[in-house]
Amino acid sequence: MCLQETIGKIKKVDTQIMAWAQDRVDHLIKPKRSLGDLEDIYVKVAGITGKKYPMIEKKSIIVMAGDHGIIEEGVATSEKDITKIQAINMTRGFTGVCALAKQARAQVVVVDIGIDNEIDTEKIVKRKIRYGAGNFLKGLAMEREEAIKALEVGIEMAEMEIQRGVNLLGTGEMGIGNTTPSAAIVSVISGESPLEVTGIGANLPAERVKHKAKVIEAALKKHTPDPTDAIDILSKVGGLEIAGMAGVMLGGAANGVPVIVDGFISTAAALIACTLEPKVKDYLIPSHASMEKGARIASEILGFKPPLNLDLRLGEGTGAAIMMNVVESALYMNKEMLTFEEAGFIVD
Amino acid sequence: MCLQETIGKIKKVDTQIMAWAQDRVDHLIKPKRSLGDLEDIYVKVAGITGKKYPMIEKKSIIVMAGDHGIIEEGVATSEKDITKIQAINMTRGFTGVCALAKQARAQVVVVDIGIDNEIDTEKIVKRKIRYGAGNFLKGLAMEREEAIKALEVGIEMAEMEIQRGVNLLGTGEMGIGNTTPSAAIVSVISGESPLEVTGIGANLPAERVKHKAKVIEAALKKHTPDPTDAIDILSKVGGLEIAGMAGVMLGGAANGVPVIVDGFISTAAALIACTLEPKVKDYLIPSHASMEKGARIASEILGFKPPLNLDLRLGEGTGAAIMMNVVESALYMNKEMLTFEEAGFIVD
Repeated sequence: MCLQETIGKIKKVDTQIMAWAQDRVDHLIKPKRSLGDLEDIYVKVAGITGKKYPMIEKKSIIVMAGDHGIIEEGVATSEKDITKIQAINMTRGFTGVCALAKQARAQVVVVDIGIDNEIDTEKIVKRKIRYGAGNFLKGLAMEREEAIKALEVGIEMAEMEIQRGVNLLGTGEMGIGNTTPSAAIVSVISGESPLEVTGIGANLPAERVKHKAKVIEAALKKHTPDPTDAIDILSKVGGLEIAGMAGVMLGGAANGVPVIVDGFISTAAALIACTLEPKVKDYLIPSHASMEKGARIASEILGFKPPLNLDLRLGEGTGAAIMMNVVESALYMNKEMLTFEEAGFIVD
Repeated sequence: MCLQETIGKIKKVDTQIMAWAQDRVDHLIKPKRSLGDLEDIYVKVAGITGKKYPMIEKKSIIVMAGDHGIIEEGVATSEKDITKIQAINMTRGFTGVCALAKQARAQVVVVDIGIDNEIDTEKIVKRKIRYGAGNFLKGLAMEREEAIKALEVGIEMAEMEIQRGVNLLGTGEMGIGNTTPSAAIVSVISGESPLEVTGIGANLPAERVKHKAKVIEAALKKHTPDPTDAIDILSKVGGLEIAGMAGVMLGGAANGVPVIVDGFISTAAALIACTLEPKVKDYLIPSHASMEKGARIASEILGFKPPLNLDLRLGEGTGAAIMMNVVESALYMNKEMLTFEEAGFIVD
């Protein structure tokens, strides 16, 4: 669960198995390449797992919940307490991600990694690192040590689920204000101006989006985070749940388990994880093209082409839940379909 | 099962229930519109079924198989016998649609509506109308009466499945050469030139795509199908399985059951169904943006925005199978999520 140890455990994906998988896919009874992304997803999962016929046993979406002092600057429309309320609602099954996870037969694990409120229910995993990230226009979002601890919570959660038999993870989050640190992260890593990557979040009016971008611009000017140092970025303009999600990705990668990336905030977390260790990218599976401005730029840096075009912008892990079905479909393709040669003995 | 009677049975979708559903969706605990297409799909299914909380009980993909005399003109790379072989393989579970239907827990029903070969297995529903559509460069694809019969087979199959408790249908097909009549249909109904809507099908080389478009152009010049008369189009440049799929759509619509439209050939069939009765459109759910040229134009006419962007171009019903999960997700969203008001009594 130590960050450096986990990063050290992340291997290159198995390119030999991938070559085998690609060859099999090219010979399945269908025109070559006619199952498009499904073919690529299967080959990727084969490389991640080192298995020729990987199948999904158990699925979990890990929802990291944390607050953001930056909302003091008027960058969000919702009240801070919504983070706590929705985190509790997640354990009661009636939020967006719970509904879609139920369809996908996935577990939802809710983690308090930095909610700025007391949490009583035992159904939430308690790993609070601090009561919300700080207002990073005035000071730091968190200390470097806190960022590392948050990443390690993510790793721990991934490993806890993997030990339970989960072999497909999805990332989700709950945190009022968290499109602001996400846009800041994307701006730092992409080099694009905050205005280019700042969107409406949870329905922020257009005039306030400009203000939100200016807040990010001022914070970046104040802190000048080092784009090559992910801990520096997290500590200066990040969020606890974003660090936690990046940790889930590292934990998945270190244990040979694919991780589905949800929307904008997850993609910002993926940028953090891949800055820490570029090999992580090969363990990540994109899901949906978030409507949030900045998502496209973040996806491009990662070489993601998200296949779901459902105009989602809720977050929580909703896109990841739907995508679990697509990943399963890709693996069923490989397991159930025959090659021309295999089928040749059967057809007359 | 009579065509005219079925068309007469197709009602306008229930706009009162849709207004209720839209209002509920707008008040679920999430930012307004943040579940995008899922919200629209639920509202649509509510309107189709007349139910406030529709859920999917059983799913079927009806695969219509038929041959095409037009392949004599060199418009396809595969041999005609592949239609028969793959239709049989469909009953053995190892084709693309079978693999994906298994993931989606959907039944695959294979119908011989016009295979140009004898079919022995009892696992294929036998409704052969003729041994393949005719070479429509030389004569008719089929007689008007045969087109009507093929539509009626589709209606019969839809109703057979609905009587079994199926309340979500998907269309699929198998027919070597069938992107050619599909492109012809799209050209007639859209008014676009054959070159604009003719694609590579099952990996036809670029220079032969041009030839394929010229064959279609010559056939359209010879027959001048009436774009407002779907039976005329089917009889002059159609295909038996395309007519059958259009029939499935009519049968679904007449019985208040949503029908998922697969790729290019399904979309051509949807154009036929909607030319026969425009109200059918409200009963159809698009699935994936097929890579086949012409698919985009066909989708635009129908007002479709297919949400899956998986670069599929296999057909068979593969996109419809994956989409079944998305439709289910939309219905789980409605059933499992609470409105702010409903949740207000629970959260503290």
